[in-house]
Amino acid sequence: MTQITLEITTSLDGYVAGRDVSLENPLGEGGESLHEWMFTLKSFRTQHGQPGGEENADDALVARNLAALGATVMGRKMFSGGRGPWQSDPNADSWFGDDPPFRTPVFVVTHHARDPITYSNGTEFHFVTGGVESAIAQAREAANGKDVRVAGGASVATQCLQAGLLDRIHLHVAPILLGGGVRLFEGADLTRLELVESSASEKVAHLSYRPT
Amino acid sequence: MTQITLEITTSLDGYVAGRDVSLENPLGEGGESLHEWMFTLKSFRTQHGQPGGEENADDALVARNLAALGATVMGRKMFSGGRGPWQSDPNADSWFGDDPPFRTPVFVVTHHARDPITYSNGTEFHFVTGGVESAIAQAREAANGKDVRVAGGASVATQCLQAGLLDRIHLHVAPILLGGGVRLFEGADLTRLELVESSASEKVAHLSYRPT
Repeated sequence: MTQITLEITTSLDGYVAGRDVSLENPLGEGGESLHEWMFTLKSFRTQHGQPGGEENADDALVARNLAALGATVMGRKMFSGGRGPWQSDPNADSWFGDDPPFRTPVFVVTHHARDPITYSNGTEFHFVTGGVESAIAQAREAANGKDVRVAGGASVATQCLQAGLLDRIHLHVAPILLGGGVRLFEGADLTRLELVESSASEKVAHLSYRPT
Repeated sequence: MTQITLEITTSLDGYVAGRDVSLENPLGEGGESLHEWMFTLKSFRTQHGQPGGEENADDALVARNLAALGATVMGRKMFSGGRGPWQSDPNADSWFGDDPPFRTPVFVVTHHARDPITYSNGTEFHFVTGGVESAIAQAREAANGKDVRVAGGASVATQCLQAGLLDRIHLHVAPILLGGGVRLFEGADLTRLELVESSASEKVAHLSYRPT
């Protein structure tokens, strides 16, 4: 049965990107270091078309989530970093390159309609103007019984939480303090979660929650 | 050998107190729920002069840290919630009551000098006007080889981190989102930490870090 999951890496102080996010530096100051724990993993490298990689407990967890992945939902900022009409977005075809590491349908939440973009590796970007509920519904259909992953950014993640759309929150907590930047769940209503799974390596802690 | 440790509970979104902190509601909106995981533990209850309590993995961890405790450092806000001269502080003798749950020396960082307060249970409040470095130095001396715990609040914790005074950060992450309030490590410089220990129950995740 399809689970709607949020999977995202935060700093220990709750940021998903550092200070001064820009088109040139989409993860902000120090933000690249959030994801370092993943770059060496076999599952991550395979998904990105790279050879080799470590096969450890972190890798097993990433591999498990990737194997369950049927479709992805993300915000416009995560797709291209831009805003406003697509004609004025210098990065309108995404910053994921010619071999986007999804290989499944991706639903991009945006205010600006456009036709889908498809890649031979199975990635399809669909552009949804009806908000997160519509994006999740379309992704659920496309996932065909597999899971839907909400990948970010912070705004879409928080909207999905607040709308009660999430079955699971998989947080990867990187051992860094960014001190400022883009916060996850900024301004969310008071929420209780159930901690259903946890593990850690020296590079990252994994905490999985069920919103209640 | 004395370790200088920060031990503090945060929400999953990085708050150590909720919105609208006041003298009447010192932990802010929803902030009490941060500490619920501790209230039922035998070690916590014993420290607070209460009978009974659960003896589980969370309890063992709290008991271990309490057994190592030689002295505590805290900010004025954590001591009384007040500010300015002590004569104008409605809570000048602390909100810890007649049997403060420390039973060891406590060094309160404040701008306003005053004489120590001592209790028959071993708690001594000393008031330090020389900043966090002076408070840590005095606490180290008083701890007599045991550990010094920085207990909060957020400002003193961040000052100690930034001054390079912490050997360990023991974070207890409660499975709640407060959505706003008092943040831990707000505005800290970009910092890398080493994750040295982790464990979890359904009520709380424990993450221990070494600043590097």
